[in-house]
Amino acid sequence: MPDNIRASVQIAPRTHQLQEFPRPVIGPDDGLMRVEACGICGSDLEQYEDHGGRRTEPCIAGHESLGIIEEIGERASQRWGVKSGDRVALESYLPCRSCDMCARGEFMSCRTGSFAYGFFPTSREPSLWGGYAECIYLHPNTLLHKVSQDIPAEVAVLYNPLGAGVRWACHLGGVGEGDTLLVLGAGQRGIAAVIAARAAGAANVIVTGLARDASKLALAREFGASHTIDVEAEDTVERVKQITDGKLCDVVLDVTPMALEPVNHAIECVRHGGRVVLAGLKGRRPMQFSPDAVIQKGATVVGAFGVDSRAYKEAISIIESGRFPLEKLHTHSFSLEDTPRAIETLQSDGDAVCVSVHPNG
Amino acid sequence: MPDNIRASVQIAPRTHQLQEFPRPVIGPDDGLMRVEACGICGSDLEQYEDHGGRRTEPCIAGHESLGIIEEIGERASQRWGVKSGDRVALESYLPCRSCDMCARGEFMSCRTGSFAYGFFPTSREPSLWGGYAECIYLHPNTLLHKVSQDIPAEVAVLYNPLGAGVRWACHLGGVGEGDTLLVLGAGQRGIAAVIAARAAGAANVIVTGLARDASKLALAREFGASHTIDVEAEDTVERVKQITDGKLCDVVLDVTPMALEPVNHAIECVRHGGRVVLAGLKGRRPMQFSPDAVIQKGATVVGAFGVDSRAYKEAISIIESGRFPLEKLHTHSFSLEDTPRAIETLQSDGDAVCVSVHPNG
Amino acid sequence: MPDNIRASVQIAPRTHQLQEFPRPVIGPDDGLMRVEACGICGSDLEQYEDHGGRRTEPCIAGHESLGIIEEIGERASQRWGVKSGDRVALESYLPCRSCDMCARGEFMSCRTGSFAYGFFPTSREPSLWGGYAECIYLHPNTLLHKVSQDIPAEVAVLYNPLGAGVRWACHLGGVGEGDTLLVLGAGQRGIAAVIAARAAGAANVIVTGLARDASKLALAREFGASHTIDVEAEDTVERVKQITDGKLCDVVLDVTPMALEPVNHAIECVRHGGRVVLAGLKGRRPMQFSPDAVIQKGATVVGAFGVDSRAYKEAISIIESGRFPLEKLHTHSFSLEDTPRAIETLQSDGDAVCVSVHPNG
Amino acid sequence: MPDNIRASVQIAPRTHQLQEFPRPVIGPDDGLMRVEACGICGSDLEQYEDHGGRRTEPCIAGHESLGIIEEIGERASQRWGVKSGDRVALESYLPCRSCDMCARGEFMSCRTGSFAYGFFPTSREPSLWGGYAECIYLHPNTLLHKVSQDIPAEVAVLYNPLGAGVRWACHLGGVGEGDTLLVLGAGQRGIAAVIAARAAGAANVIVTGLARDASKLALAREFGASHTIDVEAEDTVERVKQITDGKLCDVVLDVTPMALEPVNHAIECVRHGGRVVLAGLKGRRPMQFSPDAVIQKGATVVGAFGVDSRAYKEAISIIESGRFPLEKLHTHSFSLEDTPRAIETLQSDGDAVCVSVHPNG
Repeated sequence: MPDNIRASVQIAPRTHQLQEFPRPVIGPDDGLMRVEACGICGSDLEQYEDHGGRRTEPCIAGHESLGIIEEIGERASQRWGVKSGDRVALESYLPCRSCDMCARGEFMSCRTGSFAYGFFPTSREPSLWGGYAECIYLHPNTLLHKVSQDIPAEVAVLYNPLGAGVRWACHLGGVGEGDTLLVLGAGQRGIAAVIAARAAGAANVIVTGLARDASKLALAREFGASHTIDVEAEDTVERVKQITDGKLCDVVLDVTPMALEPVNHAIECVRHGGRVVLAGLKGRRPMQFSPDAVIQKGATVVGAFGVDSRAYKEAISIIESGRFPLEKLHTHSFSLEDTPRAIETLQSDGDAVCVSVHPNG
Repeated sequence: MPDNIRASVQIAPRTHQLQEFPRPVIGPDDGLMRVEACGICGSDLEQYEDHGGRRTEPCIAGHESLGIIEEIGERASQRWGVKSGDRVALESYLPCRSCDMCARGEFMSCRTGSFAYGFFPTSREPSLWGGYAECIYLHPNTLLHKVSQDIPAEVAVLYNPLGAGVRWACHLGGVGEGDTLLVLGAGQRGIAAVIAARAAGAANVIVTGLARDASKLALAREFGASHTIDVEAEDTVERVKQITDGKLCDVVLDVTPMALEPVNHAIECVRHGGRVVLAGLKGRRPMQFSPDAVIQKGATVVGAFGVDSRAYKEAISIIESGRFPLEKLHTHSFSLEDTPRAIETLQSDGDAVCVSVHPNG
Repeated sequence: MPDNIRASVQIAPRTHQLQEFPRPVIGPDDGLMRVEACGICGSDLEQYEDHGGRRTEPCIAGHESLGIIEEIGERASQRWGVKSGDRVALESYLPCRSCDMCARGEFMSCRTGSFAYGFFPTSREPSLWGGYAECIYLHPNTLLHKVSQDIPAEVAVLYNPLGAGVRWACHLGGVGEGDTLLVLGAGQRGIAAVIAARAAGAANVIVTGLARDASKLALAREFGASHTIDVEAEDTVERVKQITDGKLCDVVLDVTPMALEPVNHAIECVRHGGRVVLAGLKGRRPMQFSPDAVIQKGATVVGAFGVDSRAYKEAISIIESGRFPLEKLHTHSFSLEDTPRAIETLQSDGDAVCVSVHPNG
Repeated sequence: MPDNIRASVQIAPRTHQLQEFPRPVIGPDDGLMRVEACGICGSDLEQYEDHGGRRTEPCIAGHESLGIIEEIGERASQRWGVKSGDRVALESYLPCRSCDMCARGEFMSCRTGSFAYGFFPTSREPSLWGGYAECIYLHPNTLLHKVSQDIPAEVAVLYNPLGAGVRWACHLGGVGEGDTLLVLGAGQRGIAAVIAARAAGAANVIVTGLARDASKLALAREFGASHTIDVEAEDTVERVKQITDGKLCDVVLDVTPMALEPVNHAIECVRHGGRVVLAGLKGRRPMQFSPDAVIQKGATVVGAFGVDSRAYKEAISIIESGRFPLEKLHTHSFSLEDTPRAIETLQSDGDAVCVSVHPNG
C-alpha cells in the first residue's frame, strides 16, 4: 500500500473527482482498512443527486464497505478481536456508546450518533471516511464484523442489504418458522427480505412489484418467494386474501420508495395482531390513513430505522452458510474510477439489483 | 335469589325495558353470578345509540360486571379456582381457546372469538349475557378473576377501565420505572392510564384535555400526573418539548375519541425508538399521515384492541393494594331501573368519570 | 370404520392385551380420529415398565398420535378449523384453559392440567385416550394441528420429537441465526434438536454421544451437526473449547437420560450470558453442583417441561417444508398387534431412532 | 480542589494508607469527579481481606461512587450529557463497547471487560480508580448517570445496592404487578430487592433471615415485605407453602452469602414455570442438587452477574421519586481517614445495613 490513498470524492451534485490523501497515522485505538468492495443503495443515489445542494463540502461517499485490515492499533485489535490481514465488514453508524440510549444497548436511538461512514466531509481528519477509496479509516468507535475470506468480495459485500432484510423482516417484523410474509417492493432490499425470511423458516413469502420488475420478481422466486404479484395486473389485497385463504399475513414489509398506496395495502393485508414494517421512505409526503384500521386489528406498525449489529451478524452468518445462491443477487462491479457510473447504473438500469465498487481492482 | 331474574333489556335505540328471565339450570361446567356492579364505557354509549339500527334484537348490555358466585358447577369451580360466595370480575371477551391463535395464547386475535357479555341477544339461551341484570350467566369459556370482598363494589368494578390503562400504557406501551408517558385525552381511560403508569414507576406522566376537562385534569394530577395541558390554551407539541427538555416521551397513548389531530401529535411527541399506542377510535375517519415521520424516528405504533387477562389481573392487584384513592375515580351509581339514566349520565355529564349500575341495590 | 374399535391395552407392567371398545357417540364439541401412526418416546418406555406398579389401572398408552378426523361435532369443527377427512396431529397435554396460568397463555403451567392422551385409564369414558388404538377420542379441550396429507405418515408423526427439538433448542434455548449449540446426547430428541437448530440458522451444532451411538452421531452430521464428540474417547469440555476457539457455546441442551455428568459439562461449555436447557430426566438422583459457576457466568439454566403449541406448529412447518430428509430419522414401523415389540425395539435396539405404531395397517 | 488528591490506598490485606496523587490532566474525552460518597458491599469486604494475597499491588478500592463533576472534556460532556457541577453516579464496570457481545448491547458479557473502578492498581495511570479518594478519574468508557442534587448524598449513593435489587428481582426475576417474590437473605441486597419489587407492584414479598437479622427483617417489613421468616425458628418451605396457600412463588431470589441450603429452598419454593435468581456467591463450594426438580417444574434458574445501566437508571428513578423512606437503609457514614473502619463496620456490626465513606467530609 503506497503512502498516498486514492479516493473518488464527490465535489458537487453528480460530480466526482479522483483525489489522493496521505495515509493516516494509526494509534493504539484505531486502524486502517483496504477496501475490497463497497455496495450501493438508495441513500447513495440521494447523496449523489443532492438536489438540495446542502452538502456543499467535498466528501468520500460509500457506507457499505468490506475489506482487509491493513493496519490496526494494539488496543483496537484486542477490542475488535481482529488483526492485520483479517477481512471485516463495517457498520456505517457511529454511536457515541455513552448516552443513556447507548448505555441501554439501543445504539440506533443514540442521542448524539450519526452516519459517519460515507457522510463525514474530507475536511474532517483523516479524510478517509468513505468506501469509494482504496482505504478507509477505522475510528475507535467503529463497529465491525469479521467475515470469512473464502467468499467472493461481491458476495461478502451483500452483508449490508441482507442485514436490512434480517432486521426489517425478522427482528422488527418477527418473521419466524411457518410464518407468512408479504414484501411490498422487489428491489435489493425486498429480495434481501425474502432471503432473510426464508432463512428464518417463513413458510410463505409473497412479493409485489411493477410490470418492469418482472426479472426481479423471478429472482425473488429463485430465492424462495412462494408467490409474486404484478401490482399493475392484479389487485394486491384481493390476491393476498386468495393466496392466504383469507387468513392474511403475519407480517407485511413495505420497501417501496416514494409510493404511498402500499402503506394502506400493508395494513389491509396484515392479520389481526400482526406486524407491519415500514422501510420505504416517501419523500416526506403525507397520505390518507385510518387509525381505526390499526386499532381494530390490534396491529403493530414499526418504522424501520437503520440496521443494527445483531442484524449484520446474522446476515454474515447467512452469507457464510452458503445456503443461498447469493451471487445471483450481485449484478454489476465497477472500478474506483467508475464510481459515478456504478451509482448511475443502480439508478437507471432496470436489471441492476446489487452493484458494487471495487477500489483496489 | 328468586326463580326469576330481572334485567334492563335494550329493545330499541335509547330504549330499555325491565324484563324477567327464568333462572338457568347450571351444569358441571358453568355457573351463575349475582351482579353487584356493572361499569359503563364508550362502547356502551355506542350500543345505546345504535345509530345504524343494526342490532335489532333485544339484548342485555353491560360488559364490565363484578359480582358474587351464586351457583357454580363442580368442574367449573375447580377450573376457575372459585366457589359459591366468592366475588369475581368477568372478562367480556369469550375466546374459543382452540384455534391456532388461542393455542399460542393470543386470545385477543382468536379466529372465532367475539364479545359475548353485553352483546349476545336475549334470544340466545340462557338470555342472561349482560351486566345490567340481577344475575349473569357464566358460560364454560368465561374468563374470570377473583377479587377481594374488602373493597367497595364501586371501586372493585374499576377493574375494567384500569385493565385498559394497564394494557395500553404498560403492556402495549411498555411504560416502566423512570419513563415519561404522554396521555392524550382525560376521560376514564386516560386517567386509568395515569394510575397504571404511576403504579409501574413512570417518572413523568403528562395528560392533555380540553378546557371543559379541567376537573378531570385536576383528578389526573391527584392520581400522579406530573403535568397537564389544556390543548385549547397551549400548543401540545411545544409544551411537551419544553416539559421534557427536548427529550420527548418514551411512550404516547392516544385515548381521544373521534379526534384525528392527536394521532399526529403522538408521533411528534414520541422520542426516537419510542412507542405510540392508539386506543381512541375515530369513527373510521381517515387523516393525513406521513409514514416518513414514523420511519425516521424508528417509532412503533400499536393499535390497542381490547384488554387481556394479564392486564385485568394486574389491575385487580393495583385495586387490592389500596395504593391509590380509587374511590375518587367513581362518580355516579345507579339502580337497575335507572340503567338508561346511568348511560346518559356518562354521555352528557361533564363531571362523570366512572359510572356504574348496581342491579341488586 | 366398524362400531367396535380395537386397542392395545396395557393391563400390567410389560403386558398388553388387544381389546375392543364401542365407538363413542360424538356431540357438537368433540370428535373421533382414526390413528395413522403413533410415535414412541422415553415416557412410553417408563410407562411400559411401570416399575413402581403404581398405574394398576388398564390404560391405552401412546401420546404422539397422528391421524384422520373420522367424525367431528359442528362447534368443534369451527373452533379447531378442521373437518372430517383432514389429517391432524394431537398434543398430549389437556390444559384446563380457565385457571390463571392458562388465562395468561402459560398452558404448560396449568394449575389443573395433566397429560391426558396415553395416560387416562380405560375406565374413564370413553376409554379411547391413547394412540395405540384404531381410533382416539377428541375431547373438547384437545389441542390439535392440521398436517398436510402429502407427507408419509411415518414422517408426519415426527411432529412430536421435532416439536421437542424446536422448543428446547430454539424457544427455551434461544438458538438463532449464527449461534453455536452444544447438544449433549444423540437420541431422537438430540437429533431433533440438531434439525430444529439448523432450521433456525445455527452456524455450529456440536453433538455428543457414547461409542455405541456412532450411527446416531453420523445421522446427526447428516442433519447438519458440524461436529460430533465421542465422550468415551474425548474430553467433552476440552473438545468444545477447541472447536469454538475458546468462545464456548451460546446454548447447551442436555437430553441425556439418567447421566449427571453432562449437567456440569453444560455449565462449563456455555459462554458468559448463555443458556443451558435441561431436558434429560435423571431419575430424581442428585448431583454435585456449584452455584457460583452459574452466577459468575451470568448463565441461565432452564428446565424443559413438555412441548407447547407454538413449538408443534413450527415443527409441522419444518416437516411440511421438506427441507430435511426426515425419513432417515424414522427407523421402525409396527402394527397394532406388535405394540409391545415396538416399545421394546426403541428400548433395546441400538439402531432405533424413531419408532412408530400404525394401528390401521 | 487542590492540585494533590488524597486517597485511602490498600497496601496489604486489611491495611490502608493515606496517600496523595497529582491531579490528572483532563482531555476532550475524559473527566474528573469529586467523590461525595462511596458505598460498601460484600465485594469490598473480600477485597479488604484478600485472603489469597493475589492482589499485591496497591489499589484505591471503592466501586460505588457518587459525586460532582469537577472537570470534564468537551466531547465527554456532550456524550454523557452532563457538565461541570452536575452530580453523577458511576457504574463500576468498564465494557470495551466494541466486541461482538457489546455490539449487541450485552455489556455484562463483554469479552474483554473488567471491573475497573475500585480494582485497577494505582500503578495504572492516572491512579485515581477508586471511590475511597477525594476525586475519581472518569475514563472515556465510563458509564455514568445524572442524579438530582436535592437528595442527601447518603441516600443518593444507594443507587448501587438498589440497582442490584432492580436487576435481580425485576429484570432477571421478572417481578411485576401482583407477583409473589421470596427473598432468601436479609442484608442490604435483600432489602434492596424488597424495595425494587414493591416499586414494581409485587403483591407479596417474603424475606428470610437468621435470628440475629431480626432488626433487618423488621426493616424489610417497613419497606413493604408482607411476611418475614426466621429460618432458625421456622421451616422455610413449609412456611412459604402456608403463606401462599400452596401456590408457591412466582420468583425466588437468593442473596445469602456462602449458604448452600437456600439454593434448594429456592427451587422448592418456586411455582411451576417460575424463576429463581441466584446472586449469593458460595465461595465456589459445591452442593447436592437434583436437575429433575428444575425440569419437572419447568423452572428457570438465572445467575445474577453484576448490574447493568438499565437497572441503575431505574434505581435512580426510585430514589428520585421519594416514594420510599430510603434514609432508613443507610446506617453509617465515615470520613476518608476512617475507610478501614467503615469496611469493618459492615463486616461485623450486626446493625449495619448500608455504610458509606464521604471523602470530602
